[in-house]
Amino acid sequence: MSAPLAPAPVRPDWIAVDWGTSRLRAWALDAEGGIAAEASSDAGMSRMEPGGFEAALLALIGDWLPPGRVTPVLACGMVGSRQGWVQAPYRAVPCTPLVAGSFAEAPVQDPRLAVHILPGLSQPVPADVMRGEETQIAGFLAGTPDFDGVLCLPGTHTKWVRISAGEVVSFQTFMTGELFALLANQSVLRHSVKTAGWSDDAFAMAVDDALSRPDRLAARLFALRAEGLLDDLPPETARARLSGALIGAELAAAKPYWLGQEIVIIGAEEVSEAYAAALTRQGLAPQWVSGDTAALAGLAAARGLLRQGK
Amino acid sequence: MSAPLAPAPVRPDWIAVDWGTSRLRAWALDAEGGIAAEASSDAGMSRMEPGGFEAALLALIGDWLPPGRVTPVLACGMVGSRQGWVQAPYRAVPCTPLVAGSFAEAPVQDPRLAVHILPGLSQPVPADVMRGEETQIAGFLAGTPDFDGVLCLPGTHTKWVRISAGEVVSFQTFMTGELFALLANQSVLRHSVKTAGWSDDAFAMAVDDALSRPDRLAARLFALRAEGLLDDLPPETARARLSGALIGAELAAAKPYWLGQEIVIIGAEEVSEAYAAALTRQGLAPQWVSGDTAALAGLAAARGLLRQGK
Repeated sequence: MSAPLAPAPVRPDWIAVDWGTSRLRAWALDAEGGIAAEASSDAGMSRMEPGGFEAALLALIGDWLPPGRVTPVLACGMVGSRQGWVQAPYRAVPCTPLVAGSFAEAPVQDPRLAVHILPGLSQPVPADVMRGEETQIAGFLAGTPDFDGVLCLPGTHTKWVRISAGEVVSFQTFMTGELFALLANQSVLRHSVKTAGWSDDAFAMAVDDALSRPDRLAARLFALRAEGLLDDLPPETARARLSGALIGAELAAAKPYWLGQEIVIIGAEEVSEAYAAALTRQGLAPQWVSGDTAALAGLAAARGLLRQGK
Repeated sequence: MSAPLAPAPVRPDWIAVDWGTSRLRAWALDAEGGIAAEASSDAGMSRMEPGGFEAALLALIGDWLPPGRVTPVLACGMVGSRQGWVQAPYRAVPCTPLVAGSFAEAPVQDPRLAVHILPGLSQPVPADVMRGEETQIAGFLAGTPDFDGVLCLPGTHTKWVRISAGEVVSFQTFMTGELFALLANQSVLRHSVKTAGWSDDAFAMAVDDALSRPDRLAARLFALRAEGLLDDLPPETARARLSGALIGAELAAAKPYWLGQEIVIIGAEEVSEAYAAALTRQGLAPQWVSGDTAALAGLAAARGLLRQGK
């Protein structure tokens, strides 16, 4: 007589966690590096109260933890910030994106857990910081250790990063994604910009316009509202133009990073495609790596350092 | 025996109303133009439902309306927009800011009310619109009919306006005030920027920097967060720098409007002072007129047109 059907319990070798501002994501990895399970929740840092971290994590991955042994958790992102679970102090560039002995141990009650949090990177002048992207960079470099060039990591806060000899040499952050979200969803432009929809042509023209006259960014925004009122500008077109104006302004200011460089974009697919289209128009041939793939590879590299007892 | 003390009832000759996105403001005027009473509420356009306009207005000024006669109300602002009480269609520039016969009559139930809404102005190319500022412009020109130069009306959506021969020749809108509010209160910069406080020096340096390298606006914003984390940048300084970066970027894009021109700033005191300081650094000597004074004078000019039966 067969037992009732039930899924085999997940018994991971270790657990990878990307804990950002808006999402908490976790992967259960087996000893060969295969993904046994994955899970995510909206328990991002912006919703966390001090003291609530362990409970939020256990709510997501508690079922993966066998009793009687300690499962290591490697975590990156804002969870290591001053307002996070435990602070993992920034490491100053130039430096490798990942180094043994720099992980912060989070305080836990559950004897099945050991949580190691990766530190972010800082740059003294011009002042800049990152948390989470350094892990994606480490993941990318794990597969391409000889890379010499520039990484673009688009997102809420897009990072441009110079890499040489396995080190992060310098980087710069742009608030383009956050600006887009605020303008599209919360400003007067929300009446004129659709939350979805796109126009490749409108995006391309807006990027070109922004790059040729970057000083006029402030003048371009309200025109989207006025053209919506006076000329029935389609809201999908307005959305693409807003994105193009902001990404174009970013490219204008980030020109020292990308001009004449080999560029790899690491990020989510949709936003990466927009950056790739904009850069392709400037005569570049950017490569793309999935942000999730890079983050997981970076956490696996951190797990490797930990296992070697370094 | 004297009657119990009670305030004399307000019995206005007419009522002036400035009904914008966030505030509803009203003044009771006597026949000589004196202000008999004033009142305001937060029943701005953003909180109105269709059909709720008359009740919101009566809640504020109902006590001022004597029975048995009709008191005229002259209103300007977003109340005349497509989503407003009644649409007062835009008039296209070049044109005078105010013209007889263009007011829209709002539908009312209360027999004591007659509500006349002033139309806004539009510009076909480059597409732009204003609602409310045209009344301030009319008020300013009522006292200075021979003005030839440029008006700057700073606020949520700052307007730059070319005036010649009593007409609005052209204008351009910048979302600077709204951008500042979104970034200071709702973006990641809220952790680094104080809601009050100021530094004149930091503002001036940020304006100069923005004007000399306007293409770098997108790169300046996140630095405020990073310097807050790494260098303990004082949040008052960060607030002034954010304002300076945005106003400086606006001035860079609005240069064709102000360069070598006579400038009058019409607006609220604090924001007008910031613009005046920025323009003074560019070698200009801007004058200032209170936005409330100008709005009231414009509504009085509209009342004059109405009384003449034009």
